[in-house]
Amino acid sequence: MLRTLNQTHDPAARSWVESANMPDGDFPIQNLPFSIFRRKNTDEAFRGGVAIGDQVVDLGAWASQGRLSGVADEAARACAQPVLNAFFSLGPAAWGALRHALFAALHERAFPSDSNVLRDCLVPMSEVEHGLPAQIGDYTDFYTSIHHATNISRLLGLSGVSANFRSIPIAYHGRVSSLGLSGQRFVRPKGQIVPPGAQAPVFSPSLKLDYELELGIYIGQGNAPGEPIELEHADSHVFGLCLLNDWSARDIQSWEMQPLGPFLAKNFATTLSPWIVTMEALAPFRLALPRPPEDCEPLAYLHSERNSREGALDIQLEVWLETARHRAGNLPASQLSRTSFRHQYWSVAQMVAHHTVGGCNLRAGDLLGSGTVSGPEKAEAGALMELAGNASEPVTLDTGEQRSYVEDGDAVILRGYCRKTGFARIGFGECRGEVLPASAAR
Amino acid sequence: MLRTLNQTHDPAARSWVESANMPDGDFPIQNLPFSIFRRKNTDEAFRGGVAIGDQVVDLGAWASQGRLSGVADEAARACAQPVLNAFFSLGPAAWGALRHALFAALHERAFPSDSNVLRDCLVPMSEVEHGLPAQIGDYTDFYTSIHHATNISRLLGLSGVSANFRSIPIAYHGRVSSLGLSGQRFVRPKGQIVPPGAQAPVFSPSLKLDYELELGIYIGQGNAPGEPIELEHADSHVFGLCLLNDWSARDIQSWEMQPLGPFLAKNFATTLSPWIVTMEALAPFRLALPRPPEDCEPLAYLHSERNSREGALDIQLEVWLETARHRAGNLPASQLSRTSFRHQYWSVAQMVAHHTVGGCNLRAGDLLGSGTVSGPEKAEAGALMELAGNASEPVTLDTGEQRSYVEDGDAVILRGYCRKTGFARIGFGECRGEVLPASAAR
Repeated sequence: MLRTLNQTHDPAARSWVESANMPDGDFPIQNLPFSIFRRKNTDEAFRGGVAIGDQVVDLGAWASQGRLSGVADEAARACAQPVLNAFFSLGPAAWGALRHALFAALHERAFPSDSNVLRDCLVPMSEVEHGLPAQIGDYTDFYTSIHHATNISRLLGLSGVSANFRSIPIAYHGRVSSLGLSGQRFVRPKGQIVPPGAQAPVFSPSLKLDYELELGIYIGQGNAPGEPIELEHADSHVFGLCLLNDWSARDIQSWEMQPLGPFLAKNFATTLSPWIVTMEALAPFRLALPRPPEDCEPLAYLHSERNSREGALDIQLEVWLETARHRAGNLPASQLSRTSFRHQYWSVAQMVAHHTVGGCNLRAGDLLGSGTVSGPEKAEAGALMELAGNASEPVTLDTGEQRSYVEDGDAVILRGYCRKTGFARIGFGECRGEVLPASAAR
Repeated sequence: MLRTLNQTHDPAARSWVESANMPDGDFPIQNLPFSIFRRKNTDEAFRGGVAIGDQVVDLGAWASQGRLSGVADEAARACAQPVLNAFFSLGPAAWGALRHALFAALHERAFPSDSNVLRDCLVPMSEVEHGLPAQIGDYTDFYTSIHHATNISRLLGLSGVSANFRSIPIAYHGRVSSLGLSGQRFVRPKGQIVPPGAQAPVFSPSLKLDYELELGIYIGQGNAPGEPIELEHADSHVFGLCLLNDWSARDIQSWEMQPLGPFLAKNFATTLSPWIVTMEALAPFRLALPRPPEDCEPLAYLHSERNSREGALDIQLEVWLETARHRAGNLPASQLSRTSFRHQYWSVAQMVAHHTVGGCNLRAGDLLGSGTVSGPEKAEAGALMELAGNASEPVTLDTGEQRSYVEDGDAVILRGYCRKTGFARIGFGECRGEVLPASAAR
């Protein structure tokens, strides 16, 4: 399904929710991202909501007012559940119908009868807390930035990226249980680490704790086992994107990962932003994903004209670090890097096509990580190991502090947005995670 | 929690369900394994059941008769749900209480008032179908047989097992969506394969499809993030074991697995036996897990006297192959190999302790795979790649057919049981999976 631009992308559209019309806001009427929420400090049931300015539309409450009909009504009612899996399963026509109904009712020229009803379904964003947006059946983490792979290979003294990188959107299975939402705080992981010069491991808190800047990709509709999703149809199986921090303990990883890949180095925590920005909202920011002419052509199941023409997404991504000193001095966090998802070697559609080509089934609500997003310049690196040259060139923060890896008390904040002339700014909110000291136990 | 022997292990105990008293049966009164079931070809709800001879006890129906009390009653009612997660969450005291209540009511000397009520709650096993016993939040596959690791290393031309093998119970995250129950049929996976002598991959059905004989390990109670399960307590977090076939496409695996491990080579299908044999039923078959004296001592979190003394489990495991020719001739399947889980290098408790030591949380119903179980002798190998020496010595079946890898139409059948003098035989039932030809699509 080709995602064409439509009225919901009109940059002139404004909402009667005034806070949605701020020029640098994340959540204008053209965005309308989804999450699961409830009012903080209550026993309310978690349910689906859509962000508009500094407000959240309670979708189930809206549906119960009887102002919706047909598939939009069905979609809004599915969003009343504590996870969005049922809504995802309805498919792109239903997602689009609900988006268009919301756009119309939130528009400054909405019928008063519509806007009055909807006004009663708004909850101030400052009063809500979030739940995981889906029951995530499986989480898969990809490795699709050739700049990240090149940087890591160089830092490890390898001759280049692995021989399969330009043939395969490389991926491995991740851990669902330790996925958390923005605000996640976790204790520094411990594990087996081989000290420099030693032969045998010791048991120690990780000394090389790092973050990885990624996008999370929510599968909307899945596929049956043995029935792969073809590249041409892959985009229509994706509901939307969020920010994802794939926390990584580099020292645990380097000792454990042969021969079967990372395990404890990754499974202690992964942090997600709560809002899912829909593929429909991102449609204006698609662009060509040129393959370097010297690279091999991908195998047929990973190759299409359309993917080459508009497989990339120009999403600006930023990493910020907030230390205890920032907090004590009430200082803004320090920006560590900034890049764009446009530089990724493999597209989201290629990830989906590859994931299923062997017969594996995806299910509604499954989560994919894009892999670390690093751009071509060193300052565009998506991990601290890259920015600090494997600790050979520590990064200096605004506070004067230096960092080669993440230290106790540090919070890493990811931000993302799309912006281009002739379109409204589409924001992702933020993804914040904080490292606590290793527990005294053991 | 040390699992001591008790009356439910009494080899002289017999049931009024006569089929449970067959000397070579899998499901005597000393076993009492759990599954999720319903009557075939009905719309009945799936619910929990326990095997006794050729019958299944409908636990929810039994509880509703009001003959149970206290924690056994609570446990049986939790088993009325369509998955056993809530039952698992109740913990070992509840599991034991329900087991003891079942043992008493199924015993040939049960009160007639008890046995008469229970008789009405039996469903013939021949009339049931199974569902997955739990909502499996995460599936982790280990790699804990040093004999398997040694065989594979030799076949790949490596100098030995990886340097970390004797320090780490190696594991990676697996795929939940493609887990299936005995009877699973799946199409041969396709993927990127590098033909012999070639540099670049082609897209092809796997030509090296293999099975892996494993045990599946169901987590009963989990742990909070950042709060590891200590080795001494790890066994009490495990509910029980099943048979598991970790289907593997060796040719897809060898090209894709650097640097992050197996992905499409494993995630097309994994087959489980439906019955979970409880750790309590297996208690008589614990024995010492001697560590070769020349090997390094494990780090403290993986080391305890108790684990060395009784960490191993003497579970006999068999692999059988049934081809189309067996079926056409109405011949019994050919046995490929036989070994015991006692040879595993790392214990189940060590797997649990390692999995959580970095802060990862396990949840009730999580599944671990033991890794391929291969014994010290070549005939004890748990994968066809090992038995057939990487296709250099094809295995000859009773039918005269030869196999280096699994062919279309082949069914692989795993069986397991415990037997020793002075104890009843404890069986696992069977785990059967069948390979269909690669689909014509693509």
